[in-house]
Amino acid sequence: MVNEMNLKEYISFTKDRVETRLPEVVKALHAPVNLKESMLYSLTAGGKRLRPVLLFATLHAFGKDESMGLETACAVEMIHTYSLIHDDLPSMDDDDLRRGKPTNHKVYGEATAILAGDALLTNSFQLISEAAHPEITSHMKLQLITELVKASGTEGMISGQVADMEGEKKQLTLDELEYIHLHKTGKLLGFCVKAGAILAKATPLQQELLEEFSKHVGLAFQIQDDILDVEGSEEKLGKPIGSDTENEKTTYPSLLGMEAAKEKLQYHVEQALLSLRQAQIKHGLLEEICLYIAKRDS
Amino acid sequence: MVNEMNLKEYISFTKDRVETRLPEVVKALHAPVNLKESMLYSLTAGGKRLRPVLLFATLHAFGKDESMGLETACAVEMIHTYSLIHDDLPSMDDDDLRRGKPTNHKVYGEATAILAGDALLTNSFQLISEAAHPEITSHMKLQLITELVKASGTEGMISGQVADMEGEKKQLTLDELEYIHLHKTGKLLGFCVKAGAILAKATPLQQELLEEFSKHVGLAFQIQDDILDVEGSEEKLGKPIGSDTENEKTTYPSLLGMEAAKEKLQYHVEQALLSLRQAQIKHGLLEEICLYIAKRDS
Repeated sequence: MVNEMNLKEYISFTKDRVETRLPEVVKALHAPVNLKESMLYSLTAGGKRLRPVLLFATLHAFGKDESMGLETACAVEMIHTYSLIHDDLPSMDDDDLRRGKPTNHKVYGEATAILAGDALLTNSFQLISEAAHPEITSHMKLQLITELVKASGTEGMISGQVADMEGEKKQLTLDELEYIHLHKTGKLLGFCVKAGAILAKATPLQQELLEEFSKHVGLAFQIQDDILDVEGSEEKLGKPIGSDTENEKTTYPSLLGMEAAKEKLQYHVEQALLSLRQAQIKHGLLEEICLYIAKRDS
Repeated sequence: MVNEMNLKEYISFTKDRVETRLPEVVKALHAPVNLKESMLYSLTAGGKRLRPVLLFATLHAFGKDESMGLETACAVEMIHTYSLIHDDLPSMDDDDLRRGKPTNHKVYGEATAILAGDALLTNSFQLISEAAHPEITSHMKLQLITELVKASGTEGMISGQVADMEGEKKQLTLDELEYIHLHKTGKLLGFCVKAGAILAKATPLQQELLEEFSKHVGLAFQIQDDILDVEGSEEKLGKPIGSDTENEKTTYPSLLGMEAAKEKLQYHVEQALLSLRQAQIKHGLLEEICLYIAKRDS
């Protein structure tokens, strides 16, 4: 376990671990060069690595070594990356840029982008099934795999993307908007906290409280995302603002007004912290992450 | 375990089991209606269910109950189906028809087809991780998951598809052609035999012999496919013949001539049977399947 660090150091520690391991995983594969390049291109394109940070910080809160969660954290990043590659495709969101760089299909072509996404998704499960750490049991690995499927498959991320597409250019209700965000981003963020709890052998009550925590963190994350699209700085975000309005997308500010959206953000942060503080764990880092997510400027 | 049946009865028995279970799996999911419909459309489009037949027949050869392999067989069909949906996409093979019906993206649109494929792939792993059978241990499930990733991911099917696309309209060598087929179809067929062997606790020698068996069966399958594209009946195949020639695709007949292609097919059948007969199992059904694959007319 790492010594006490502030959040900035912890994020950097996590990035280092994950960004060292991910290229190793891909480079060790026997596969056509072009496919591996395409996988690596998106996998190493940066990003906040927020999901691994959540997973590591949960382990940390239980006094467990972060290395227990490294393979699972990398699996999550592979799944998150595959979802970005597929979402950017011309038949989906048709995006040319992602984090300031050309999207995968712009560089490697559509067919390779689809297959690179498929490959990242498929191979992620092997990382968990083969994770070698003395404290990780076979039973834990199967739990992780089941929960990862629930978070990323039809009952999670994929349904969120379907609902998002179906809801485009249509005025959504608050319930519909929450459904999209809970599924599209919330479930995978929630998996990271749950994975930490599974590996740390949390009690059922702790698991329940942490699930509540991550649900509110996920919604807070999304509301802040919507707010940044109106009030953020293009320079800090690395993308143009106002795109939601331009695409007639229903957002928290468009639905509730900016003032109420900010109140809702504050509500979810408070609810998240309330659950967290009842879990009787060393919650300092998770609390900082929650506050960071709600106040981030990029 | 089923009583003695001939191959036709066994195929029909397998189809019944798998085609009853697959819709149950999808219908039980909480997901948008349209996504579930799109998944079911391709999953229930028929086909020979050759992969489940191989898995069941391997269990049968070891005197094991077929029900032990049902969830794994369904997982394989989900992965096989996802690969067909993605391969048919406009940016890949751009096919409008599959088994005489419009392809998934022709009915549900490209975005939904991509997501339905992603969903079938993702959720397949949950079927294995949650398989409930008293003889299936956690260790076996993890072995199955690892082997399924190897067969369908970057080291298997996906690399086969990449190599296939890269090899289009270019004269391939025999080695290149074999690489494509061993990966694109061979690995997943091989997984089915391996899965049966894992579940039946085959010895390392038996596993090795069965791996040799399935490698040759996979190549025999593909050579017969190529032969049927020249000499088959459009009515029985349910698709136009001659498409390989038209697309300037390298095939066994185009590379070796028809006579030598047929000899090669015969060679692989003999090698498959040679390995099989050394495995000291009740090999009758597997032998029949091998001969059926080499002589099928559709």
